[in-house]
Amino acid sequence: MANHPVLIAGEWRKAHSRRSFSSENPALGEKLPGEYPISDWADCDAALAAATAAAAVLRASPPDGVAAFLDAYAGRIEARKAELVEVAHAETGLPKAPRLADVELPRTTGQLRQAAAAAREGSWALPTIDTRLDIRSVLTAIGPVWVFGPNNFPFAFNSVAGGDFAAALAAGNPVIAKANSSHPGTTRLLAEEAHAAAREAGLPPGTVQLIYRTSHEDGERLVSDPRTGATGYTGSRSAGLKLKAAADAAGKPIYLELSAVNPVLILPGALAERGTALVDEFVASSLMGTGQFCTNPSLVLLVAGDATEQFIAGVRARFDAAAPAPLLSSGVLRSLGESVSTLQAAGASLVTGGAPATPGYRFCNTLLRVSGDAFLAAPGKLQTEAFGNAALFVVARDAGQLAALVETLEGSLTGGFYTDTHGSDDALHAKLEPLLRPRVGRLLNDKMPTGVAVTAAMNHGGPYPSTGHPGFTAVGIPAALRRFAMLQCYDNVRPSRLPALLRDQPPNDRVFRLIDGEWRRGPAPGA
Amino acid sequence: MANHPVLIAGEWRKAHSRRSFSSENPALGEKLPGEYPISDWADCDAALAAATAAAAVLRASPPDGVAAFLDAYAGRIEARKAELVEVAHAETGLPKAPRLADVELPRTTGQLRQAAAAAREGSWALPTIDTRLDIRSVLTAIGPVWVFGPNNFPFAFNSVAGGDFAAALAAGNPVIAKANSSHPGTTRLLAEEAHAAAREAGLPPGTVQLIYRTSHEDGERLVSDPRTGATGYTGSRSAGLKLKAAADAAGKPIYLELSAVNPVLILPGALAERGTALVDEFVASSLMGTGQFCTNPSLVLLVAGDATEQFIAGVRARFDAAAPAPLLSSGVLRSLGESVSTLQAAGASLVTGGAPATPGYRFCNTLLRVSGDAFLAAPGKLQTEAFGNAALFVVARDAGQLAALVETLEGSLTGGFYTDTHGSDDALHAKLEPLLRPRVGRLLNDKMPTGVAVTAAMNHGGPYPSTGHPGFTAVGIPAALRRFAMLQCYDNVRPSRLPALLRDQPPNDRVFRLIDGEWRRGPAPGA
Repeated sequence: MANHPVLIAGEWRKAHSRRSFSSENPALGEKLPGEYPISDWADCDAALAAATAAAAVLRASPPDGVAAFLDAYAGRIEARKAELVEVAHAETGLPKAPRLADVELPRTTGQLRQAAAAAREGSWALPTIDTRLDIRSVLTAIGPVWVFGPNNFPFAFNSVAGGDFAAALAAGNPVIAKANSSHPGTTRLLAEEAHAAAREAGLPPGTVQLIYRTSHEDGERLVSDPRTGATGYTGSRSAGLKLKAAADAAGKPIYLELSAVNPVLILPGALAERGTALVDEFVASSLMGTGQFCTNPSLVLLVAGDATEQFIAGVRARFDAAAPAPLLSSGVLRSLGESVSTLQAAGASLVTGGAPATPGYRFCNTLLRVSGDAFLAAPGKLQTEAFGNAALFVVARDAGQLAALVETLEGSLTGGFYTDTHGSDDALHAKLEPLLRPRVGRLLNDKMPTGVAVTAAMNHGGPYPSTGHPGFTAVGIPAALRRFAMLQCYDNVRPSRLPALLRDQPPNDRVFRLIDGEWRRGPAPGA
Repeated sequence: MANHPVLIAGEWRKAHSRRSFSSENPALGEKLPGEYPISDWADCDAALAAATAAAAVLRASPPDGVAAFLDAYAGRIEARKAELVEVAHAETGLPKAPRLADVELPRTTGQLRQAAAAAREGSWALPTIDTRLDIRSVLTAIGPVWVFGPNNFPFAFNSVAGGDFAAALAAGNPVIAKANSSHPGTTRLLAEEAHAAAREAGLPPGTVQLIYRTSHEDGERLVSDPRTGATGYTGSRSAGLKLKAAADAAGKPIYLELSAVNPVLILPGALAERGTALVDEFVASSLMGTGQFCTNPSLVLLVAGDATEQFIAGVRARFDAAAPAPLLSSGVLRSLGESVSTLQAAGASLVTGGAPATPGYRFCNTLLRVSGDAFLAAPGKLQTEAFGNAALFVVARDAGQLAALVETLEGSLTGGFYTDTHGSDDALHAKLEPLLRPRVGRLLNDKMPTGVAVTAAMNHGGPYPSTGHPGFTAVGIPAALRRFAMLQCYDNVRPSRLPALLRDQPPNDRVFRLIDGEWRRGPAPGA
């Protein structure tokens, strides 16, 4: 029975159900202390009721309260850094430094602060004013947002602290966080700080809520509940598609980040020019976080030849030399083994790895290869995501075959080209780029995809099935906020009844508004 | 057997199937000459293949070609105006003047020219540049777009000339138009001009295509085909939801405009102050286009009392005095009769009308009323859209009951308040506005909703079930273009390989780009 409460309606309260689960230390394969509740519908319903009430209050309030909360929360996370890093390390097996303490935690607090700044400023909402017709529109809070966070970023994508959380709040919505089952302890600590910061900022009690786990049936019910505004989900494709079907049927927006193989094309000139450096670059990106990044480069396309054999041998040697790091959970280990088997059954052969390792939940660093001909015979199966420290190299018969290979690729978050610096790859690149470009959200040159900067131009999204809609991004402020908003237009509405962002006099001197066709700061002309 | 060809791959060709249909003159109830084909999958498949090829060419071309096409097409529509108006009048029963010739046709050509200007300029695509990290992103063509146009605007929402068509083309996509079955002749004439203009502008042959009709099964197949980029649909809720289910399951964006009752709240002070003027205003909006506007005010909320009884009597007198104008088709007539029966069965009583009229497909101008108590007993049924010249008045017991009524309202395209000019309605308005606001896309004050200006701040969208997603609008440039686009990011991509909108030097001096956090024209700093 659970000894940890859920956070509903501004109070840490006992969950309604008696069912519970616990987390494990994946580096050791040992159960961690603490029992977390599996909520039944009563908890979901109570959270939705409180969030609905909070949404109404937030809608009527200036964004300063939410912004103050986001800033204060960031500060509280920093103040509790040592404990957070300790618990996240125990629950995920990710290194304390630099990963958790020096990269992911600062990224998380940076996101919260960027979101606060965006909320205060307001340009994210694309305020638009046509003075002649007196028609005005703005993106506004969509209503209570459910956030399902993934297992692989216990801070930066955490349901109660990560990118979706920050974006949904900054857009003016209450968030109901559904913790990832593999790091409930980390999530609990974060939610404690979020709760305290929300209370201090005077936000309504249902603004930040947390449940740890539900049945699949209740998950489908909550994303489609009439009170739900939208859902942000990052996780496995199978679970995500079930939630998507339920939300779609109810007409509720759901933003999903599902899976991606992130194809990298290393063209012959680049390999000839800097093959050894590319081995280093690829291995660093491929094994980063034990390969458990959404943007992990897990499918590499190469052209047959000596340089490619040397590259493969180089990667193999580095994979063999690196001790396998822990995976996030026993589930990831099991799924990785199954994916590697699927790839082998579809025609890929093992270069190295392919078996579990110890202690805890580990898998040998794994490299597979397949010929271009074999890939073309089973392109679907051979794009099975092997989430973890595994990669598949596709060796095309010749450069001409690359186009056929690219044309079989599913939608992915990223895709990239490595080309030489003297122009010998340019013709081939020019032929392949138009084929790859519409298949990926972010296109890279001469760079591995694992770095996802939190910046306005970032796209952490892509065509289905990498996400549910290719027009949105889960990372990058201000664009990420726009997922959690509805378009609200005011036609001939009396000036005193307009929201602050649409009045002739803007609420601050920094917000950009599209006034009579021009983006500008300051008051509407004639005001 | 059809005597009219379909437009596929740049050629007017005989449809593959032998099945056909014809249209009717609804003002007279008489069949019109001409047999139009019902396409089978072979036509859909051929159109998708040609559109896919066209999409690749368009992607690699500057927007000038599409913009020149849109402008030239607008000119051609104007040159053929007399014939277009004649045929549209025969097929729809809508008045030639002012409606078709002086309002809808100029609106249509205006939309095409606005779309051309937006395509040339590029700001619609929200080009975003972070110079420090060299990450850049832009909204770009999503791929072949299917457009299903509605019956009620033979020009302005026509599949091959209307708002979705213009927006999809301006965003860089080929369009496959699926004609509305009630005005195939109008659509054929428009497509002839579109085809000629596209050829003259040198666009690839699959850029503009037309089929007239398919089976429901093929409709579901084509919106979910892997080659489809997105779909724009305006029409009945039942057919739209089937297409939505198919597209959603395939991860294909579909933008729907389904149905709306467009609630209007006339508060007691406004009625006391200007009841007679409001009768005129309401009747003009309610009967405009025989009530067949997506934004028709078909649900009016009032508070019981003498002024309300006078208002109802005034509307009734005007409804009785106006000869019923033709509906768009026998289908609309049948459906309107069914909806009125549904409303009556749910508790509404007939004030006037309620029966078919002659000649052709007409229905007596119909007014129903229901008490607030009765409405609260069956709010779903009593929001059945009665598409046509019918309206339902809900008479609340007292002002206090209005809030309960508003809280039962489904998502709608528009909603509005009439309040007095001396402040006596202000307290009630302040209580009701927060309840109505999140339920509608466009909120009006002291104005009926039937005018939908084509302007940047317009929102012709709203919460489900009025549309499929509350963040998008079908009318209003530039926002309408963004439905038919995917977000494409460039990370460390060599300058010569960037699309024109993302290079340091912009392609023109008018485009606004979000560069390092500021919307600006001109080159990126340091360039």
